[in-house]
Amino acid sequence: MDLPHLLITLILIFVGAKALGELANRIGQPTVLGELVAGVILGVGGLKLLDPHANVFVLLADIGVIILLFETGLATDIRELLEVGWRSLAVAAVGVILPFAGGFAFALAFGYTNLVAIFLGAALTATSVGITVRVLSDLGKLKSKEAKIILAAAVADDIIGLIILAVVRDLGITGEVHPLKIVQITALAVGFFVAAIVLGNIFAKQLVRIIEKTRTSGTLIVASIAFAFLLSLGAELAGSAAIIGSFAAGLALGRTHKFEVIARELKPVAYIFTPIFFVKIGADVDLAYFNPFNEANHAILVVAGFLFVIAMVGKLLSGAAVFDRRIKATTVGIGMAPRGEVGLIFAEVGRRAGIVTADLFAAVVVVMALTTFVAPPLLKASVARRPRGVSLLAWFFEPARRRVSNLIWGR
Amino acid sequence: MDLPHLLITLILIFVGAKALGELANRIGQPTVLGELVAGVILGVGGLKLLDPHANVFVLLADIGVIILLFETGLATDIRELLEVGWRSLAVAAVGVILPFAGGFAFALAFGYTNLVAIFLGAALTATSVGITVRVLSDLGKLKSKEAKIILAAAVADDIIGLIILAVVRDLGITGEVHPLKIVQITALAVGFFVAAIVLGNIFAKQLVRIIEKTRTSGTLIVASIAFAFLLSLGAELAGSAAIIGSFAAGLALGRTHKFEVIARELKPVAYIFTPIFFVKIGADVDLAYFNPFNEANHAILVVAGFLFVIAMVGKLLSGAAVFDRRIKATTVGIGMAPRGEVGLIFAEVGRRAGIVTADLFAAVVVVMALTTFVAPPLLKASVARRPRGVSLLAWFFEPARRRVSNLIWGR
Repeated sequence: MDLPHLLITLILIFVGAKALGELANRIGQPTVLGELVAGVILGVGGLKLLDPHANVFVLLADIGVIILLFETGLATDIRELLEVGWRSLAVAAVGVILPFAGGFAFALAFGYTNLVAIFLGAALTATSVGITVRVLSDLGKLKSKEAKIILAAAVADDIIGLIILAVVRDLGITGEVHPLKIVQITALAVGFFVAAIVLGNIFAKQLVRIIEKTRTSGTLIVASIAFAFLLSLGAELAGSAAIIGSFAAGLALGRTHKFEVIARELKPVAYIFTPIFFVKIGADVDLAYFNPFNEANHAILVVAGFLFVIAMVGKLLSGAAVFDRRIKATTVGIGMAPRGEVGLIFAEVGRRAGIVTADLFAAVVVVMALTTFVAPPLLKASVARRPRGVSLLAWFFEPARRRVSNLIWGR
Repeated sequence: MDLPHLLITLILIFVGAKALGELANRIGQPTVLGELVAGVILGVGGLKLLDPHANVFVLLADIGVIILLFETGLATDIRELLEVGWRSLAVAAVGVILPFAGGFAFALAFGYTNLVAIFLGAALTATSVGITVRVLSDLGKLKSKEAKIILAAAVADDIIGLIILAVVRDLGITGEVHPLKIVQITALAVGFFVAAIVLGNIFAKQLVRIIEKTRTSGTLIVASIAFAFLLSLGAELAGSAAIIGSFAAGLALGRTHKFEVIARELKPVAYIFTPIFFVKIGADVDLAYFNPFNEANHAILVVAGFLFVIAMVGKLLSGAAVFDRRIKATTVGIGMAPRGEVGLIFAEVGRRAGIVTADLFAAVVVVMALTTFVAPPLLKASVARRPRGVSLLAWFFEPARRRVSNLIWGR
């Protein structure tokens, strides 16, 4: 890519994201939904003015979501995150098991082999947390209990995703699973996150101390972002996702006394970079699959429809694993619903191994897009709802819920 | 480039720029000199950890200098710029004519052909204003009279550079000059700048009015940068340099009542992007040419030494064209001294056409590097000097200077 093309790309992203974000906002929808739609209009599904596979675009989008999760980490109190640790783990586990089981059963019922069923189930498991974080941030709900649970569950979900990826990769290549490798991968990912939190905390304080002694301007924001990039790189090298690293960096710097200055200076940088990520997601959506006049799409859309329901219901029910009346289970469930790149990677591994057919892959692509686009409005509606459930159903099940909650969490 | 490599590249740039920038500052040197040296250490001349030709690195560096000149435009009052217009034009003209004549004469004296002499002269003409802007900005002197003259002269210099490029390109390819094409190029470049200023002013006000009505956050900074990118793109398409466009965008937005908010929010973005540009310049410097133990370098270094003196003296004398006692002629002259990419483009055209030999090209590369590295400390020293000249020489020539000044500027 040369400079004029990069400038055109960035102008289109900025103008498109801001114009459609504003429009979404005016009609009561989350801003990020407008940014996603801007991507669809400008990308492969629309005017084809943006190439979502262009190297620079992909990298800037990656930097965008890294900065978004860094910003989120800065605004998150790590103690509150640890408080909801076990509940989040339960949410993550249920949110992986149910969609996997659903996808697996669906595939078997439709006569696919066990191997295909495993890939299809796996593709539905991994949450893509960027969308949720952005919606909650725009709504000023990043400090809510629900946000904490979603964030901690997303970290757990990423590590579970790594394990699943290792399993499906082994199944796809050699046809058998290597338990030792899986233990290694898990230990590395968990170890990295714990180390990033513990060492990150120590280094963050040292870093701020050093920065306070410098005389040149801009050192705080530049060093903070370098720190976030360093932990992102570490996470990548540990097999985890870069955003897990930048989130950990944010958590660590969030405990230093400079966190407010960093957050303030980071804001304009985030304004510039994050729309690139969301427009890129939209630009990747190929609307061709959604064309009902193309008969080849019918089977894809029917399969996608089933998988979409399984994917949504599975994550929605995962919210129930919180078992706490003060927390909106539906908000947590919807917050975990968006799927993205990781699911596509699973399906891609299966496709390369000749297990997942082109049609099934297309169905997975459609499901990822649907969960991504459906989550922001549902999440906004769910957040706006009054906290105490008033439905007859909730009233009816309340005694049972309380008993189960006491049983599990011992309250 | 993949994400881990981009992260490593950015971490190295940020840490290197900040560490050596701070060090430079501590030993009384301009911060940007430290950033340049960081680039040399990390780039092709040193540890080879940074590849200055990597597409993403090049593009981010371009964005860096675009944002730097946008920021400069925001801080510059266009009326004060127009006030010094004619003086700046004189500075630009002398600063082009003297180094060209010097390079040309030197080449002829050493037995080169007319054609070689023209290319060598041309390579010494074009100022690279980024370094100067950054030094003056760090010293808080961006609003000085000298800065105004340098900025306006840099715009004129860019347009003169376009004309020279057209001439040398024609000479290199067809061996003859097409006057009509040169008139076209000049008209387009001048026309673009005038149109960008006039129309930019109107659109900037409209843009701010629209932004004030939006409800989503971050619109002001994102739209402002999109505006800067749009004019940068326009400048590129008009054959001019992208930084001329972003400078014009800054001038236009600087006249709106939101300019302070834009400048404040732009600051962290500039802190992130501008070091990428300066580290890239340093990373491009190939120290191999400077090795005196390599006999092949002797001729190159001798030629480079002569050309360096011609390049420096030519621009230093251009400062004298200001003919105003209240303005430091040496500051203006040194400010115009750094050469960069444009000069290399001229030499490259000559090399491709088989006119400039590899050794001469290497000498030009060395001269560009020397002018770039020598300018920041000289500029800082010159700015710090007391405004009124106290030297015997200045006292001796003062009556003559005043007479010439009256003759030219009619005061």
